[in-house]
Amino acid sequence: MYRTHTCGELNAKQIGQTVTLSGWAQTIRNKGKMIWVDLRDRYGITQLVFEEGKTNACVWENVKKIGREFVVQVSGKVIERYTKNPNLPTGEIEIQVETLTILNASDIPPFTIEDNTDGGEELRAKYRYLDLRRPVMQKNIYLRHRVTKLVRDYMDGQQFAEIETPYLIKSTPEGARDFVVPSRLHAGNFYALPQSPQTFKQLLMIGGYDRYFQIVKCFRDEDFRADRQPEFTQIDCEMSFVEQEDILQMFEGLMQFVIKEVTGKQLDKFPRIPFEKAMAIYGTDKPDLRFDLPITDLTEIIKGRNFNVFDSAEYIGGIIVPGQAEISRKIIDGLTDYVKTPQVGAKGMVYLKYNGDGSFKSSIDKFYSPEDWQKISSQIGMNSGDILFILSGNRTETLTALGRLRIHLAEHFALINENDFAPLWVTDFPLYEWDEEAQRYNAMHHPFTAPKAEDVGLFETNPAAMHANAYDMVLNGMEIGGGSIRIHDAEVQKKMFRTLNLAEDEINEKFGFIINAFKYGAPPHGGIAFGLDRIVAILAGTSYIRDVIAFPKNNAGRDLMLDSPSEISKEQLDELSLVIKKENSVEK
Amino acid sequence: MYRTHTCGELNAKQIGQTVTLSGWAQTIRNKGKMIWVDLRDRYGITQLVFEEGKTNACVWENVKKIGREFVVQVSGKVIERYTKNPNLPTGEIEIQVETLTILNASDIPPFTIEDNTDGGEELRAKYRYLDLRRPVMQKNIYLRHRVTKLVRDYMDGQQFAEIETPYLIKSTPEGARDFVVPSRLHAGNFYALPQSPQTFKQLLMIGGYDRYFQIVKCFRDEDFRADRQPEFTQIDCEMSFVEQEDILQMFEGLMQFVIKEVTGKQLDKFPRIPFEKAMAIYGTDKPDLRFDLPITDLTEIIKGRNFNVFDSAEYIGGIIVPGQAEISRKIIDGLTDYVKTPQVGAKGMVYLKYNGDGSFKSSIDKFYSPEDWQKISSQIGMNSGDILFILSGNRTETLTALGRLRIHLAEHFALINENDFAPLWVTDFPLYEWDEEAQRYNAMHHPFTAPKAEDVGLFETNPAAMHANAYDMVLNGMEIGGGSIRIHDAEVQKKMFRTLNLAEDEINEKFGFIINAFKYGAPPHGGIAFGLDRIVAILAGTSYIRDVIAFPKNNAGRDLMLDSPSEISKEQLDELSLVIKKENSVEK
Repeated sequence: MYRTHTCGELNAKQIGQTVTLSGWAQTIRNKGKMIWVDLRDRYGITQLVFEEGKTNACVWENVKKIGREFVVQVSGKVIERYTKNPNLPTGEIEIQVETLTILNASDIPPFTIEDNTDGGEELRAKYRYLDLRRPVMQKNIYLRHRVTKLVRDYMDGQQFAEIETPYLIKSTPEGARDFVVPSRLHAGNFYALPQSPQTFKQLLMIGGYDRYFQIVKCFRDEDFRADRQPEFTQIDCEMSFVEQEDILQMFEGLMQFVIKEVTGKQLDKFPRIPFEKAMAIYGTDKPDLRFDLPITDLTEIIKGRNFNVFDSAEYIGGIIVPGQAEISRKIIDGLTDYVKTPQVGAKGMVYLKYNGDGSFKSSIDKFYSPEDWQKISSQIGMNSGDILFILSGNRTETLTALGRLRIHLAEHFALINENDFAPLWVTDFPLYEWDEEAQRYNAMHHPFTAPKAEDVGLFETNPAAMHANAYDMVLNGMEIGGGSIRIHDAEVQKKMFRTLNLAEDEINEKFGFIINAFKYGAPPHGGIAFGLDRIVAILAGTSYIRDVIAFPKNNAGRDLMLDSPSEISKEQLDELSLVIKKENSVEK
Repeated sequence: MYRTHTCGELNAKQIGQTVTLSGWAQTIRNKGKMIWVDLRDRYGITQLVFEEGKTNACVWENVKKIGREFVVQVSGKVIERYTKNPNLPTGEIEIQVETLTILNASDIPPFTIEDNTDGGEELRAKYRYLDLRRPVMQKNIYLRHRVTKLVRDYMDGQQFAEIETPYLIKSTPEGARDFVVPSRLHAGNFYALPQSPQTFKQLLMIGGYDRYFQIVKCFRDEDFRADRQPEFTQIDCEMSFVEQEDILQMFEGLMQFVIKEVTGKQLDKFPRIPFEKAMAIYGTDKPDLRFDLPITDLTEIIKGRNFNVFDSAEYIGGIIVPGQAEISRKIIDGLTDYVKTPQVGAKGMVYLKYNGDGSFKSSIDKFYSPEDWQKISSQIGMNSGDILFILSGNRTETLTALGRLRIHLAEHFALINENDFAPLWVTDFPLYEWDEEAQRYNAMHHPFTAPKAEDVGLFETNPAAMHANAYDMVLNGMEIGGGSIRIHDAEVQKKMFRTLNLAEDEINEKFGFIINAFKYGAPPHGGIAFGLDRIVAILAGTSYIRDVIAFPKNNAGRDLMLDSPSEISKEQLDELSLVIKKENSVEK
């Protein structure tokens, strides 16, 4: 061992002891006759002190050769520090160095190894191993370890078994977003990488495994979007002989346990909000409940004053921001500009100020009298001092726009406490969604999702009205998990497929072997999958999942450190019986 | 929840309680007026009893419909069993069923769901989800979960962090055995799947992560051999600021912990045997120490009696089997046939019996007198009643043949206690091995493996004599882990490459980015990787790793359940800018 202690553990108790430390030179302060070096390792920083004349001459010569990020080993005595640093666990002491070995030199790093580094994103990606030395990255990566350990402890305690499912699986006809893997030994044939272990966990339930989980990489060859990774990590779970309620309780418990252990906060029972209510009140199926600002349906309340925009609208909704009636015209204009941006897509916005003096001011005062406003505001619980923002149009689009506005308002008026955790379940999702383009229904979750028992009669008559035993866990406005009770009844499964307009041979081609498995005693079962990257990012307080992944890819799916993906040799292509179509080659 | 209890937990304490169970019908015994059903779940088997007249008529009709592997839910009273089964945890009780729901029917399974099933290997592979229901498979899969949990607990307790490394990496020019993954968005470019996270764990050490581990899938597109899987699981580990001794102690501790927790056995300190000694005494670098039978070097002792086979041999070695001098000529002939098989490759075998009456009998008594034998046997510690088997020829080949014979003898004479665990470290591996075909040295472990400090002077003069800080952990004759201290000194690394005859540009092409990383302060580090599949197989007492993998591939790398690998659509190939060379297509 190259050390007796780490750089994070020495304090006044060890004064007088001789110790050996190893680590990286974080900073070197050369004051001529004195040199201080901050030695850094995973565990912390310890100050080393060298003094001309007092320090062994050989060591004194050597320490002057040290540069930033040199790896050094020192032995010396722990002494009390003259100027103590109360912000550092080791701030009471320093090491009077007696021997020093330069274990490795370092070129000058391309950016500073500090939380507030001067390195740009691309440079840090290329030198990821140096970026990973920054304390904030170390904190994130250890947090990720901690979270996975906690998840495993909880699951193990609940008699879940972690079972590995294969990575080399079969490409499905639907798998346009599958990554595929050519087989060398079976020329012209391909494996596929799993988008999720969904099929396998259902097969494990059929195999009698009862309580399965796995922390597992999944793969999706999507057109890259900001903060999407082609490989990502799921906490994948499935249980047999359960109903929806059992699953909600089990995994609410998981998240309460993890957050309690990591942050010390004991979360209350999670609110449960049906999908349609979430859409109506928050304009999204993943509401951020760290702040209130509900959407109020004004459709019936506000029409009939000859304001054509409203009178012709399918839906009118508003958000009251309490106590902000005083904001300037400029701020209102800014908010109006925001709702007109493409990602919100509203044509305009109406506001209503209920001033502190009891007067009203609105952008549509031409159509509405103070008495109208009085009546409306009292109906919707708007108080003097509040401001109301109103959008109108097609119901779904307007609600979605209001949902985005709601978040924007919370950010603008600083209503979000970044240290809060506001989890909830969104339940009662529709079973189907209508595909306008294909003119048919799609399964909203997936085709093995069970409908609510009371809706089973609607398969033939009104599929659009059917609800699923499906649920999402939402935390701080992010969907962090989603799942469903699965169909285990062959008759229900057939009805499901029929409504999806699948022909018998199509069903067999797409789902043949799992349907075959269902013939041999499938138990009632259901499950959920969580996005680990997202959960850790929320706990780490970062918006970017690549901040909690040791070696992420960039937004174009490239690894800049490895320079991957890259070309492979002619020999390798030959072995795989593959030829690259050159005319298609668009991008390097 | 579909149950109040599992099928494994009820006993005399619950007599009189009303309970609900769910599970699979394992056996149905219909005696006309009485029907017994063994209900099975993950946790055990509980006997259900139905009686005509006494059981509700509706339930009585229903139970007669139940077949093997039907999924049923029952409620009823726990009653004392008339004929108790002491071999079953639930053997004191049965359930007098009051309500019964058939949750799912089952077709007749293609083989019996029992440890001694009537299903052949291929059939069971195709219906893996049914094979997985067999108690022995359930035991293995839960054991695997337990082992991984224990590994994680130990590593976490030692401040190792589990850090995920990427699956989509870069194909290396040496990576002929890489599986590759075509990129859709970067046409003509490929990712590769990792053969191991070796590079990444070294980068993590450079990144300051100190103690890393990961239970991780690795991939190798090899020509398939018996009991090889194209995807396999490693326990991958790396530490900084350590020497070989630190690593041996840390991971000896890991294996002692796992075996103690799983079997209750506390293993002693592991013997350490240098590579050359292992070869000389056991004829292999992975000796099975559950039995003794060392190889004795007879080269100097037995020559010079005009037996040309011996006199012309580079090496002569023998194995004494104590107390077996009485074996028949037929058995000796059988053993001789064995050493002549291609996998052993000896030309013949000489035996020497030291009979109970003090006489000697050998196949070469023409050349050796009883006095010769007396002298030789006393020199090698052979006693009256023992038999000696002798092979001769080229040293390495003969030792390898003796190593195989040693195992064969142990099996033949039943000297192996299957419940024993005999671990050891094999150390001091040569740094290089000579590649006769390419007429150059190869790195025996890999080119980042550190030589012994005392051998560093031999790079230019005698590389063949250099030894590495490399080590294998061997358990019951299987290599279960291997690793090394890595080079962290740029000068040593250059010498290593030079001896491997690598040109500068070749080095950069093959190892460029990691060598670049080494410029920025690489700490001294080393590690080890264990084969999880193999460890679990040994603990499960099976010889086949596919018995401890939920969804394995067959020896041809095919998944018979999924029918994978398989063809993909023209559209998918187009999206990937790939064409399949048809003339190469050999196998479906």
